[in-house]
Amino acid sequence: MRCTGDIEVRDLEEVAINIDPIQAGGRLTADAMKAIIAYGDGYSVCDNCRKPFRLDHIKKPPLDAFHHDLARFVGMDEARVMPGARRGFQAVADTYVEKGSPVLLTALSHYTEFLAIEAAGGVPREIPKDAKNIITADAAASRIEDVTREFGRPPALLFIDHFDYQFGNEHQVREIARAARAYDVKVMYNGAYTVGIMPVDGKELGVDFVVGSGHKSMASPAPSGLLATTKEHAQELFRTTQAKGDITGRAFGVKEVELLGCTLMGATIMGMMASFPHVRERVNRWEEELANGKIVIDALRSIEGTAILSEYPRKHTLTRVDTRKSFDRVAESHKKRGYFFTSALSEKGIGGVIPGATRVWKFNTYGLTKQQAEYLASAFTGIARENGIPVS
Amino acid sequence: MRCTGDIEVRDLEEVAINIDPIQAGGRLTADAMKAIIAYGDGYSVCDNCRKPFRLDHIKKPPLDAFHHDLARFVGMDEARVMPGARRGFQAVADTYVEKGSPVLLTALSHYTEFLAIEAAGGVPREIPKDAKNIITADAAASRIEDVTREFGRPPALLFIDHFDYQFGNEHQVREIARAARAYDVKVMYNGAYTVGIMPVDGKELGVDFVVGSGHKSMASPAPSGLLATTKEHAQELFRTTQAKGDITGRAFGVKEVELLGCTLMGATIMGMMASFPHVRERVNRWEEELANGKIVIDALRSIEGTAILSEYPRKHTLTRVDTRKSFDRVAESHKKRGYFFTSALSEKGIGGVIPGATRVWKFNTYGLTKQQAEYLASAFTGIARENGIPVS
Repeated sequence: MRCTGDIEVRDLEEVAINIDPIQAGGRLTADAMKAIIAYGDGYSVCDNCRKPFRLDHIKKPPLDAFHHDLARFVGMDEARVMPGARRGFQAVADTYVEKGSPVLLTALSHYTEFLAIEAAGGVPREIPKDAKNIITADAAASRIEDVTREFGRPPALLFIDHFDYQFGNEHQVREIARAARAYDVKVMYNGAYTVGIMPVDGKELGVDFVVGSGHKSMASPAPSGLLATTKEHAQELFRTTQAKGDITGRAFGVKEVELLGCTLMGATIMGMMASFPHVRERVNRWEEELANGKIVIDALRSIEGTAILSEYPRKHTLTRVDTRKSFDRVAESHKKRGYFFTSALSEKGIGGVIPGATRVWKFNTYGLTKQQAEYLASAFTGIARENGIPVS
Repeated sequence: MRCTGDIEVRDLEEVAINIDPIQAGGRLTADAMKAIIAYGDGYSVCDNCRKPFRLDHIKKPPLDAFHHDLARFVGMDEARVMPGARRGFQAVADTYVEKGSPVLLTALSHYTEFLAIEAAGGVPREIPKDAKNIITADAAASRIEDVTREFGRPPALLFIDHFDYQFGNEHQVREIARAARAYDVKVMYNGAYTVGIMPVDGKELGVDFVVGSGHKSMASPAPSGLLATTKEHAQELFRTTQAKGDITGRAFGVKEVELLGCTLMGATIMGMMASFPHVRERVNRWEEELANGKIVIDALRSIEGTAILSEYPRKHTLTRVDTRKSFDRVAESHKKRGYFFTSALSEKGIGGVIPGATRVWKFNTYGLTKQQAEYLASAFTGIARENGIPVS
C-alpha cells in the first residue's frame, strides 16, 4: 500500500510479530503517536520559548519538568535530551578526550563509541571479553594499567555497555566502575539496551555519565536519547558557551557547547515525553519480559543442533543464536536455500530476521506478550519439525 | 484540549495565522504527516537495511535515491542528512578546524556557528556588517587579511549565512566566495533560511559546503537537515572510520566519522523525504512569497512611526520591524500595557509574535496565501487605527 509519493506504508508492526534485534524497544506507544501528530511541525515546541531561550527551560509543553524526570529516572543529577545515544558519546568524548588521549572501551563496544572517540582525536583501546563473552572488572583494571604504562597517563574515559549489542550479555558495570574509580578514571555508561526497558540507577552503579537511546529503548522517534551526569561533572559536560563576537561583542548566554544549543525541538522530544510515563512503568516489568523471553529461548534450545551463544540463563531479551547445525543444515538442500527459514517465519507472521539468515543471527523478544512468546516458540519448533530437525 | 498525559494539543497552525519567525518553513506537509505516522517507530527505516549497513544506502524506503536528490537539489555532488543544520556546522568545523585555528563568521552569524567553532577549539572572528546590515565581499576580504596577519595563517573556514536570522537580509555570498577562493579559504554556506524555500545552487555560488535545516525550511520534523559538498571535499568531510579494535581487530567499514554512522533513522528522514517533492517545487514560487510579503510590509510602512529594519525592498519573508514609535507608544498608556498588541493580534487569529512585544520584533510571512497576507496587512493597520495611530 502506498503511503505517499514513492513511499510504501510501513506495516511490519501491524502484520507481524517483529523480533528485529534493534527495533523492539523503540516502537512508539499510542501516546507518543498522538504527540508526534500534534507536534509534527519543525519547531513545534518553541511556541512558548521565553528567556533564557533553551529547550530544557520550556514550561509549555513541560519540557523543563521532563528533563528533571529524566535525570531522576536514571539516578543522576542532570539530564539533557540528545539526537541519539551516539551524540551523547560524542559530547562526553569531546569534553574529556584530548588529541592522542587513550580511551578504554570493550571488545563488545558499539561502533558509535569508536567513532565518537575517533572524532575527538582519542586512541581507543579495548578491554577483552572473557571466554564467556563477559567484560569483567579484572580485565578492566588490568587494561587501565596497560594503558597507563603505554601512554604514561591513565585513560581519559572508560566506556562500558551494560548489555552489549552482540550477545545481549550483562557486563560487570558496578565492579568496573569501582575499579575505575580506584584509578581515577571516569566511566561512561552506555545504556542503549537498558535505559527505558529495565531499571537503571547511574549513581548506584557508580558511573559518571549515563547515555540512553530514545529510538532504541524508550519508545521514541529517531534520533533521540538522553545524556545524564552528576552535579560535579555537569559543570564541564554541560558548560555554557564562552564564545564572543570580537567585533559585535555578542555573547550567547546559557547555550551549551556540546549540545550546540537546543537538540530536539519537536516531534522527537514530544514522542519521548509522551512515552515516558509508560517507559517509567515498564522498566519494572523487566522480569516478566525475561520470563517471556525464556519461553522462546527454551524452545530454541530444544531444537537439536541449536546453540544459544549469549550467556544463559538470559538476563536480556536480545539474544544471539547459532543455528548452523540445525536450520542451516536444512538450507543446504532446501529449494529456497537459506531463505526457507525467514520465508517460513514470514508465513507464520513473524518478521525482523534478516532474509536468508540461517547461521548466526540475533533476535529480541522485548515487548511480546506471553501469548506471542508462546506462539513464537511454537513457530520455531514447528519449522524445525516440518523440516525434519529433531525437537526434544 | 488534552493530547495525552499532561501534554496539551498544539493547535497554533489550525487556529491562527502563524507568523513566528522560525516556524514558517518547517510546517509539515500533509504527506510528511502521513509519513511520520507510518514511520513513527524508532528504527523504522531499518527494516531493509543490508550491507554496507548505512542509512544512505537503504533502498526501501528509497533513502539512497533521496540522498542523491538532495545533493542535486542544492547543486552539490554529495549530501547527507543530519540532525539539524547545527550538526552540519559541527561536522565541517570538526573536519577542518584545529585547536587555535581562526575561523571567520559574520556579525550576523547564528549562535550555533559560534558553538560549532568553539566545540572544535577554533577561534571565531567576525566580518562586520555595513551600515545597511549587509555582509560585503570587501569586508570579508579585509578580514581574511586581518586574520592572516593576526594568526600567521588564513582562516580555516569562512561561515556565511546567505540570509541572516536577525534581519533576513541577503549577503554577498557569491562575491564573498570568490574573494575567499582567491585567498584559498573554504566557504561554509549556511542555508538554514534558504534551502527548501528558495532555489540554492552551491556550486554556482562557489561555496564548498552547503548546510540546510529540515525543521526550519524543509517542512520536516526536528531535528533534521542536510550537509552537502563537492566530490573533492567529500573525501575529507565524509571520511570513513579508521578506528580498529586493538584486541579484536574489529574495523567498522563505511561508517562515516563526522556523522557517527547513521543520523536520522525514522520519522525525521521520512518526514523530510515525503515533503521533498513539495519542497523542490515550492522553491520556484519564491517570487510569489515575496509578493505576498510585500503586501504586509507595505501595510506596516503605512503605519506612522513604524520602520522596517530589514533591507528594503525585501528579498526574504523574514523581517525585523521597529514599532517603538507606533505600537509601543500605545502600550505606554494602554491598560494591557505591552500585551495589548499581541492580544489584539490574537483576537484577530494571528499568532507567533512574542507576547508583550511592541518594540523591535520579527515575523515571517512564508507560506501565507495572498488572501492571508491581505488579512494580516489589514489586521496590522486595523490595530493601528483602533488605537489612534495614523495610517497613510
